[in-house]
Amino acid sequence: MNKFGIRFSFSTFGESHGAGIGCVVDGVPAGLTIDEAYIQSELDRRKPGQNEFATARKEADKVEILSGTFEGKSTGTPIAMVIYNTNQKSKDYTNIKDVFRPGHADFTYWNKYGIRDYRGGGRSSARETAARVAAGAVAKMMIKELGIEIQSGIVEIAGIKSEVHDFDYVASSEIYTLDKNAEDAQKAAILEAKTRHDSVGGAALVKIKNAPIGLGEPLYYKLDAVLADAMMGINAVKAVEIGDGIESCRTTGSTNNDPIRRSGFKSNHSGGILGGISNGEDIDISVYFKPTPSIFIEQETIDTHDTEQHFSLKGRHDPCVAIRGSVVAESMAALVIADMLLLNMGRKMDGLTSYYKK
Amino acid sequence: MNKFGIRFSFSTFGESHGAGIGCVVDGVPAGLTIDEAYIQSELDRRKPGQNEFATARKEADKVEILSGTFEGKSTGTPIAMVIYNTNQKSKDYTNIKDVFRPGHADFTYWNKYGIRDYRGGGRSSARETAARVAAGAVAKMMIKELGIEIQSGIVEIAGIKSEVHDFDYVASSEIYTLDKNAEDAQKAAILEAKTRHDSVGGAALVKIKNAPIGLGEPLYYKLDAVLADAMMGINAVKAVEIGDGIESCRTTGSTNNDPIRRSGFKSNHSGGILGGISNGEDIDISVYFKPTPSIFIEQETIDTHDTEQHFSLKGRHDPCVAIRGSVVAESMAALVIADMLLLNMGRKMDGLTSYYKK
Amino acid sequence: MNKFGIRFSFSTFGESHGAGIGCVVDGVPAGLTIDEAYIQSELDRRKPGQNEFATARKEADKVEILSGTFEGKSTGTPIAMVIYNTNQKSKDYTNIKDVFRPGHADFTYWNKYGIRDYRGGGRSSARETAARVAAGAVAKMMIKELGIEIQSGIVEIAGIKSEVHDFDYVASSEIYTLDKNAEDAQKAAILEAKTRHDSVGGAALVKIKNAPIGLGEPLYYKLDAVLADAMMGINAVKAVEIGDGIESCRTTGSTNNDPIRRSGFKSNHSGGILGGISNGEDIDISVYFKPTPSIFIEQETIDTHDTEQHFSLKGRHDPCVAIRGSVVAESMAALVIADMLLLNMGRKMDGLTSYYKK
Amino acid sequence: MNKFGIRFSFSTFGESHGAGIGCVVDGVPAGLTIDEAYIQSELDRRKPGQNEFATARKEADKVEILSGTFEGKSTGTPIAMVIYNTNQKSKDYTNIKDVFRPGHADFTYWNKYGIRDYRGGGRSSARETAARVAAGAVAKMMIKELGIEIQSGIVEIAGIKSEVHDFDYVASSEIYTLDKNAEDAQKAAILEAKTRHDSVGGAALVKIKNAPIGLGEPLYYKLDAVLADAMMGINAVKAVEIGDGIESCRTTGSTNNDPIRRSGFKSNHSGGILGGISNGEDIDISVYFKPTPSIFIEQETIDTHDTEQHFSLKGRHDPCVAIRGSVVAESMAALVIADMLLLNMGRKMDGLTSYYKK
Repeated sequence: MNKFGIRFSFSTFGESHGAGIGCVVDGVPAGLTIDEAYIQSELDRRKPGQNEFATARKEADKVEILSGTFEGKSTGTPIAMVIYNTNQKSKDYTNIKDVFRPGHADFTYWNKYGIRDYRGGGRSSARETAARVAAGAVAKMMIKELGIEIQSGIVEIAGIKSEVHDFDYVASSEIYTLDKNAEDAQKAAILEAKTRHDSVGGAALVKIKNAPIGLGEPLYYKLDAVLADAMMGINAVKAVEIGDGIESCRTTGSTNNDPIRRSGFKSNHSGGILGGISNGEDIDISVYFKPTPSIFIEQETIDTHDTEQHFSLKGRHDPCVAIRGSVVAESMAALVIADMLLLNMGRKMDGLTSYYKK
Repeated sequence: MNKFGIRFSFSTFGESHGAGIGCVVDGVPAGLTIDEAYIQSELDRRKPGQNEFATARKEADKVEILSGTFEGKSTGTPIAMVIYNTNQKSKDYTNIKDVFRPGHADFTYWNKYGIRDYRGGGRSSARETAARVAAGAVAKMMIKELGIEIQSGIVEIAGIKSEVHDFDYVASSEIYTLDKNAEDAQKAAILEAKTRHDSVGGAALVKIKNAPIGLGEPLYYKLDAVLADAMMGINAVKAVEIGDGIESCRTTGSTNNDPIRRSGFKSNHSGGILGGISNGEDIDISVYFKPTPSIFIEQETIDTHDTEQHFSLKGRHDPCVAIRGSVVAESMAALVIADMLLLNMGRKMDGLTSYYKK
Repeated sequence: MNKFGIRFSFSTFGESHGAGIGCVVDGVPAGLTIDEAYIQSELDRRKPGQNEFATARKEADKVEILSGTFEGKSTGTPIAMVIYNTNQKSKDYTNIKDVFRPGHADFTYWNKYGIRDYRGGGRSSARETAARVAAGAVAKMMIKELGIEIQSGIVEIAGIKSEVHDFDYVASSEIYTLDKNAEDAQKAAILEAKTRHDSVGGAALVKIKNAPIGLGEPLYYKLDAVLADAMMGINAVKAVEIGDGIESCRTTGSTNNDPIRRSGFKSNHSGGILGGISNGEDIDISVYFKPTPSIFIEQETIDTHDTEQHFSLKGRHDPCVAIRGSVVAESMAALVIADMLLLNMGRKMDGLTSYYKK
Repeated sequence: MNKFGIRFSFSTFGESHGAGIGCVVDGVPAGLTIDEAYIQSELDRRKPGQNEFATARKEADKVEILSGTFEGKSTGTPIAMVIYNTNQKSKDYTNIKDVFRPGHADFTYWNKYGIRDYRGGGRSSARETAARVAAGAVAKMMIKELGIEIQSGIVEIAGIKSEVHDFDYVASSEIYTLDKNAEDAQKAAILEAKTRHDSVGGAALVKIKNAPIGLGEPLYYKLDAVLADAMMGINAVKAVEIGDGIESCRTTGSTNNDPIRRSGFKSNHSGGILGGISNGEDIDISVYFKPTPSIFIEQETIDTHDTEQHFSLKGRHDPCVAIRGSVVAESMAALVIADMLLLNMGRKMDGLTSYYKK
């Protein structure tokens, strides 16, 4: 079950310490200019080892396109991309060979599959998300052709909120924050946790601008439901909100309903989605990441022989996964929108007849 | 796109004011005892018109099984169920024939499909969720055979929390609350809003007990991701959390990681899911419902002729959709678990070989 | 696994002797005029009991639309249809309660599911194909709007071929034959078998005219592959050919290749499909039906207690299922084309951008 | 739409003259021993350039596993395999850059996608079938663990039939024929066509032995329907038969029905499938391949500028694709069976409860 999407879909493969990871993007319309440098630049945004707020582990994350393009354009056939693993320090993991790291998938993979690639989490490693970003870059190139834009940034780290949402600032920030004024405090919280060998959680906001009205295929492929699926499936994500999310449950209908005017909606509590279908307003998705489970403080656990242990993890890990995770969330949003755009083309008879008219 | 699930799946059909609504449940293993009275009792839990905290609209919601059972047992073929509509007051809706009700799907359906069954929302009506409850009842009968139990209740109404989570109390409460002590305040908040012709939001907690370790098909059919999809797709839901959810993003790794002991996990911040796979602990899902968009206070909107209007809705509506919505959330959870149970059977070669050994 | 199709899909439910059978058609674009009388007329073409060449069993096959239409048009929501069973003589089947009818699915259903609706085959009964015809009628209404036409007729009965393929004659023929000159011999062969309490096989040709170039989603949703799936899945079908089919395997490349001219292809050995994609020529599908397995001659079999038996079937059955089966094949072809038409809309970027251009 | 299968599935990517081709096999149960040498040996059976009956083009077809295995076993995660292209003579194709080769997908791909990788057919090249064989090898390893065996061989070349079906002989035959006595005539027919710069068609028989009773998920994922889909989707295939196939349509029910005895069926006209479900007998599938469309005789065609041409193809091609195609058909059959084995595990409640019993 390693495929996501129906019409514009992608599947990923690969483990953190195997030969490599990759993706196959299927359903890309033919004739899309595929800018390999752009795909690489997207991967670079997610890449580890860039500053003290991320893991010191350096991975080149160099992408290679294996298929699906010809003379710089998509051909309508599957676009396969591979990122070979180059900086795998498998020895980092020998001390956890038999141990289930708390907060990780070690325990559940072992129990489910009876086998476990202990080198850095194997398939459950966040390294796999690089493949999503590569796929997402293709989706972003496609939706950009329609004028749709996707942005993301950090709205909260360790409980410190970004009061301002300045998407233009994100690229300048080492922690991708949306609020320049909150940045120092957010950074300090990360470094403080890092010094204590601990980690902190955080949250990202993803905003989709200029999406056409009508995206979403009710009732069981609603736009918000599929976005929730996409986001909750990202490593470490524990909550997803659309629009005002939880806050809307604490208000009244008269406050929460967005009045409709000829010029559009007067407010956007709904986050751009009504009845599972986009309404033309900005689509806002809040994505909450738990603290990195990989910490270097001693923890209680058991091993594969069911022996209780106190152990301390070694290695190199992000003190706050929300930062690089925000890029993954943005990519997943793009992949959902790309799929919805294609599915939506079949909504009306007149669109169908005019499409096939000679 | 009106089907949910892969191996144990269901699809629904029907509009609020058409001939009826229904579902087809596919993939039910043969030999399950189908208790029609139980299905009806589940529908009765969701049924409107039961007290002053729900809409006064009375619907019998009488379910009829059309196929898939023989002599009281499932046969492995699709179980189709239909609930004929009986109390449709279509005239209630003539005043909104051309008007887009704020907070509703009217605007988006109209824009997407160019046609709109204005009678009570048509397909986008919460009435459709009765079909989910019927399908969910079949799922619940199945998972009960494996000792898995699903419970739900109200954790919050209009910002008033249920501090205690007493699932045994829910059935006694007209508002399905989990906290007897919070009940009066929660009820008062609903009635206060109702008196003002307004509505309030709320939240439900769904708890799955005794699920086996190993449910969830990573990476793109993870248990938490599919639950998020299932919940966010319910009418009026705007946020979903697994386990501690948003709170976990505000804490540290050392606090949030659940220590593992031979007897199980020492805490359950993760909500029973690690790496998208169940870990044997209780699976906790929080589901947040916005206030009912149907309110009787005057609102600003436009109509299908793009004319701006001030209009007041008439009719009968729930002042708080979270209450009946909690039953729907519980049903969706059961449907997800049923699907995951079947999918999980293919995880290991030794399970496969012993299954097919003569 | 009772759903067929991706974008324009349908699922069916029901057993021959339960409450009824039906289908849910999903993905129908909004705004299609739904002519209920036409759906009924299609069902009438498949209906049993019309003459001596079909079973004497009379079924009204009256279709009821439960959802998905409003004021005579499709709304983009699922169209559910039900046909209640009215002429079930369950007593006809008491003598086969425990016996596996040779050539039927009794043996395999029993072994797979451990339970069996012995009344006329239950789910495996050809009665289910009425639901396909109802769904197919919706597909036919849709593709007709695009100028696509689907025809079918009998090309062979009991080895007697229809040398001429006159689709205009089919409606006049009680056995839906394509060749007026072969009709008497074909009819005689059926009646001769019927008199001996035996049955005969036959074959149908389905022709799709005016399909646009480009239908089919290579490589694993090719037009020919999906048509083969659709046809082989019809009760009693044992072989499917596209274009010249088997004959093409006995010729040479220089003979079999269709020369291409500006005005089109000079021949159509390929049956209108190249590389899994329609090429604009007529799409020709030959569908071969085995003789009805229900015969009244004594046969050897076993029962559910593993006891060997000699038994003679009673009841009312078609002496040649190919005749009514041809209508089912035609319906399935329409359903495949409808799905392919919608999927094909996402093939090119320029189609996408012009679709979403304001 | 480049994925096949539901539970045990595979997708392929790649073009004949791009970087490489490959596949991702998903749903392989964990703990299966993955014998890389066996996968390679399967590829070698399909590999071109081995004798005068196949194309002179030499391709190493060296497979590399990128993911999904650990210490020689499957881990339950996707198994990605890649075969880099090494012997691409793109210059061979410059003369057909703008020309649509008759009998090929050039015309349809161009019309569908508006772009065309003219180098050897791109995605539509039979080279892609190497990826199917790699995926099929994994499926074969899996089903072998359950005692299921799949065999294939040539039953007909240029109209010359293999009267004997000796599967043990196939490996010794350069043309994979099932009949030693027909071999010389079959070979002569191929060489005769080759000398004339023409090609011939042929047919393969695939036999599945020891499949358990119960495989196939009626009504729209029947075993025979999915096999038909799998086979018809192979390059150059134009017809598929199950069991007696077309012959059964020319006989009577009393002859065609297979009598059932306690020891099994007395005959196997049905080809091991009843009602879309395996009945425990050998599953027989006949697959018919048209003559290779790539011939060196002058042909009529048009080009991308709609200019009529007489042109002669150059290059290196198989004079009879059925030979190497038989290996592909065998692989596809294995992939279908693997999927059906996993899906079938959910058929009965007692299987489910015993699977999850502690």
